[in-house]
Amino acid sequence: DINNERLLQYFKQFSAIGATPGGGVHRLALSDEDKQARDLFVELLHDLGAEVKIDDLGNIYGIKQGTNPEAEPVVIGSHLDSVPNGGKYDGAVGVLGALEVLATLVDAETTHQRTLIIVNFTNEEGARFPKPMIASGVLAGVYTTEDMHSLQDESGTTIREELERINYLGAPEHRLTNIDSFIELHIEQGPYLINENAHIGLVQGIHGLSWHDVKFTGKSDHAGPSPMKDRRDAGLSAMHALTRVEDYVLNLQDETRFTTGRFQLAPGVVNAVPGEARFSIDIRHPLNDTLKERIETIQQMIEDEAARRGVKSEMSDLSYMPPVPFSTRLLQAAERITSQKNIDAPQLYSGAGHDAMYMSHLGETLMLFIPSLDGVSHNEQEESRWEDIVTAVDVLGDLVLEQLNR
Amino acid sequence: DINNERLLQYFKQFSAIGATPGGGVHRLALSDEDKQARDLFVELLHDLGAEVKIDDLGNIYGIKQGTNPEAEPVVIGSHLDSVPNGGKYDGAVGVLGALEVLATLVDAETTHQRTLIIVNFTNEEGARFPKPMIASGVLAGVYTTEDMHSLQDESGTTIREELERINYLGAPEHRLTNIDSFIELHIEQGPYLINENAHIGLVQGIHGLSWHDVKFTGKSDHAGPSPMKDRRDAGLSAMHALTRVEDYVLNLQDETRFTTGRFQLAPGVVNAVPGEARFSIDIRHPLNDTLKERIETIQQMIEDEAARRGVKSEMSDLSYMPPVPFSTRLLQAAERITSQKNIDAPQLYSGAGHDAMYMSHLGETLMLFIPSLDGVSHNEQEESRWEDIVTAVDVLGDLVLEQLNR
Ligand SMILES: NC(=O)NCCC(=O)O
Ligand SMILES: NC(=O)NCCC(=O)O
Repeated sequence: DINNERLLQYFKQFSAIGATPGGGVHRLALSDEDKQARDLFVELLHDLGAEVKIDDLGNIYGIKQGTNPEAEPVVIGSHLDSVPNGGKYDGAVGVLGALEVLATLVDAETTHQRTLIIVNFTNEEGARFPKPMIASGVLAGVYTTEDMHSLQDESGTTIREELERINYLGAPEHRLTNIDSFIELHIEQGPYLINENAHIGLVQGIHGLSWHDVKFTGKSDHAGPSPMKDRRDAGLSAMHALTRVEDYVLNLQDETRFTTGRFQLAPGVVNAVPGEARFSIDIRHPLNDTLKERIETIQQMIEDEAARRGVKSEMSDLSYMPPVPFSTRLLQAAERITSQKNIDAPQLYSGAGHDAMYMSHLGETLMLFIPSLDGVSHNEQEESRWEDIVTAVDVLGDLVLEQLNR
Repeated sequence: DINNERLLQYFKQFSAIGATPGGGVHRLALSDEDKQARDLFVELLHDLGAEVKIDDLGNIYGIKQGTNPEAEPVVIGSHLDSVPNGGKYDGAVGVLGALEVLATLVDAETTHQRTLIIVNFTNEEGARFPKPMIASGVLAGVYTTEDMHSLQDESGTTIREELERINYLGAPEHRLTNIDSFIELHIEQGPYLINENAHIGLVQGIHGLSWHDVKFTGKSDHAGPSPMKDRRDAGLSAMHALTRVEDYVLNLQDETRFTTGRFQLAPGVVNAVPGEARFSIDIRHPLNDTLKERIETIQQMIEDEAARRGVKSEMSDLSYMPPVPFSTRLLQAAERITSQKNIDAPQLYSGAGHDAMYMSHLGETLMLFIPSLDGVSHNEQEESRWEDIVTAVDVLGDLVLEQLNR
C-alpha cells in the first residue's frame, strides 16, 4: 500500500519549486527551477537507495535492480518541466507517483524479477525549446541527438548549452534501449473523465497530430485610400479560410480537433491592410487514415479560399506524429486491477501528446489518466482531486508490481 | 514658371537621405535621417533668403515676408518623415514642391501682399511615435503640448527628448496661429486617379476615421484534449466577427472602409486554443453621420458574434477624427486654374489623414493629389510620374500666388 502522507510531502516539496502566485508552477525545461527540481529528484532517489544515471539527453533514471539481470526493465515516470505558469500536477504527478511506488517497494523490502526504472524526461513540454517530447523522441530514433542538442530557445541558447550549464549532460550509454514496458501516469488535461464522473481513466492510445505553418500573401495597402473591393487582404482571407474549416470540423461531430493558436499580420499596424498573414494549424484524430483525410481536406479548403481572393497560400509541415495505440495486454491488466478494486475506469484516447507516444517504440506502453477539474491544463488553474491522485498511484503500483514479476 | 531641373535636384538630394535598396526612404520621425533631412531643408531655406523659425513641436517654417504685415499668411508644405521603408514622395513632394514655389517667387523677385510660409511638420506618419499628425494636432488645439512631448517610441524615448537631441526643440512663440490658408500637395496613396487616367486630383475633404482596440476573452484550452464543441475560442470567435463585418461592408458598396491591421492571440502557441484575441479596427467614411452609424453597426455585430459564443468582448476607442470638408473657395480657385491650363482634374476624398485635417481648424484648407502608380504607398514600391509632379507643383504655384495677393 502506498503512503498517502509521504506522497503529499513529495508534492509539497516539488510544487514549491518555481511556484507561481496563482498556485501553479513556472518551471521551464533546463531553467534554474528545473535544475532545482532535478536536484531534489536525484536526492530523493539516492535516499531510497536507487542507483541514479543521467544520459546525454538529460533524462534522469532512478534504478532498483531486479533479481533477473537478463529480463528487460519496467519503466515508469513522466516529466518535471512545465509550460510558462503551468499546473502543479502536469508531468509531476507521473514522476512523483513513480517515486512513491519505488518508495513503497523499498519500504516493504519487496524483491522482483525485472529491474524498475523511474524516469524524468527532458523538455517534454516543448514550451521553452519548441519541440515537445524531444528526449523520448531521440530514444525512439525519431529525432537525432544533434536535433535535440542544437534546439534553441527564443534567446538562441541551445539545449546542449543548458544541459552543460545545469550539470545534466550525462553519458549516451545510460540511455534506455530495450524495455519491457513503460507506464505513464498523467492528468487528463481535458474534460472527459470529469464529465463522466470518473476517478481514473485508462488510455487506449494517443491522437495523431499534425502541425503546419501557413503563410498567406496578398497586397499591403493603406487602410484609408484603398477601396474595399480592390483589396487583397491576407488577414481577412485567412480568417475566412479558418472559419470555413471550423464550420466543417464542427459539422463532422467526430473526434477531429482543429486549432489555430498563432496568428500574425504584417505589417501589423492599425492603418495598413495586411499584405501577409502567418498562422499555425494543429489537426488531430485518433485514426491515421482519417487524420490524413482531414489534413488533405483542410489544406484544400484553405488553398481554395486564398485563391478565391487572389491571395497566395503556402503551407509547411512542422510536425507529424501518427496516432499511437497502447498495449492491449497492459490495458487488460489495468482493467482487471481497477475492477478488482471496484473502481470505474472508463477508457479514452489522449488528445495530447506524451513521452509515452515515443516510448511505445521501445516496449509495451500504457497511460493512466487522473481527471482534470474543469478540464483545464497548461494554466495555473489546473487542479485535480487529491483522492483521485492517491487512487491512481495505487493502481499504478499494482500494475507495476505485476509487470515486474511477469 | 517653375524650374523642372531645380525641382529634380531637390528630390535627388532628399531621396538620398535614408535611401533604401528598393528605391524608397527610411526616415522615421526625429531619427538621425530625419535630422539630416531637416538640416538640408533649413540650409536650402537660408539659401533662398527665407527667415527660418522652429517651434517647440519641431515644426520648421521658412518665411518670405509679404508687403502687408497685417494680412494673415498663406502656408504650404507637408512632412519629411516616412514610415519604415516608405516611399520617396510621401510627404516630401509637398515640402519640396513648396520649396520650389518659394524658389520661383524669389527668382522672379515677385512681391506679394501676404506672407508665404513653407512648413515641414513633425511626426506626420505616427510610425515611430504612434499618433499621426500630432504636431498639427497641437496647433489645432486637439492635443496638448504635453500629449506630444511625452509621446514615446517603442524603446521608451519621448518626442521631447529626441527634439532636444537633434536640436529641433524651438520656441512656442514660433507656432503658427492665425493663417489665411493652407495648401498641401501630396501623393494620393490610392488607385482612384490612376484608374481615372488623371494627372492631378482636387481633394474635397478627408474621410473621418475611427480607430478601436478590441479584446475578446474566451477560455484557453489544450488543443488536444478539449472537444471542439466545448471550446470558447477567442481567436475563431474574433475571426467570425471580422468576416461578418467585412461581408456587411462589401455589401454596402459605398465609401465605407474597414480594416483590421493588427491581430494577436494569447497564449500564442501552436497547441493552445487561444483564450484571448486582441485586434484593431479602422473604420472610415467621408460623412460624419454615416461614419457614426457604421461604427455603431459594426460594434454591435462584433459584440453579438462574441456573445453567441460565450466570449467576452471589450472595445476601446483609440482615435476619432471627424471628416473634414475642404474650402469651397480654394477648390473653385483650383478648378479655375486647372481648366485654364486644360488639365483634367477630378475631385475626390482623401481616405488617408493628413496635417491638412488639423490645419483646417486654423484657416481655409485644400489638398492637391498626385496619382500613385498602382495605388501603392507606405512601401518602397510607391511611385509617381515625374510629369505629374511637375504639373502639380505648377498648379500649386499659381494657386499660391493668387492667395498671396487676395
Ligand atoms: N501533454 C502535452 O501537453 N503535450 C504537448 C504536445 C501536444 O500538443 O499534445
Ligand atoms: N497619410 C497618412 O498616411 N496618414 C496617416 C493616418 C491615416 O491612417 O490616415
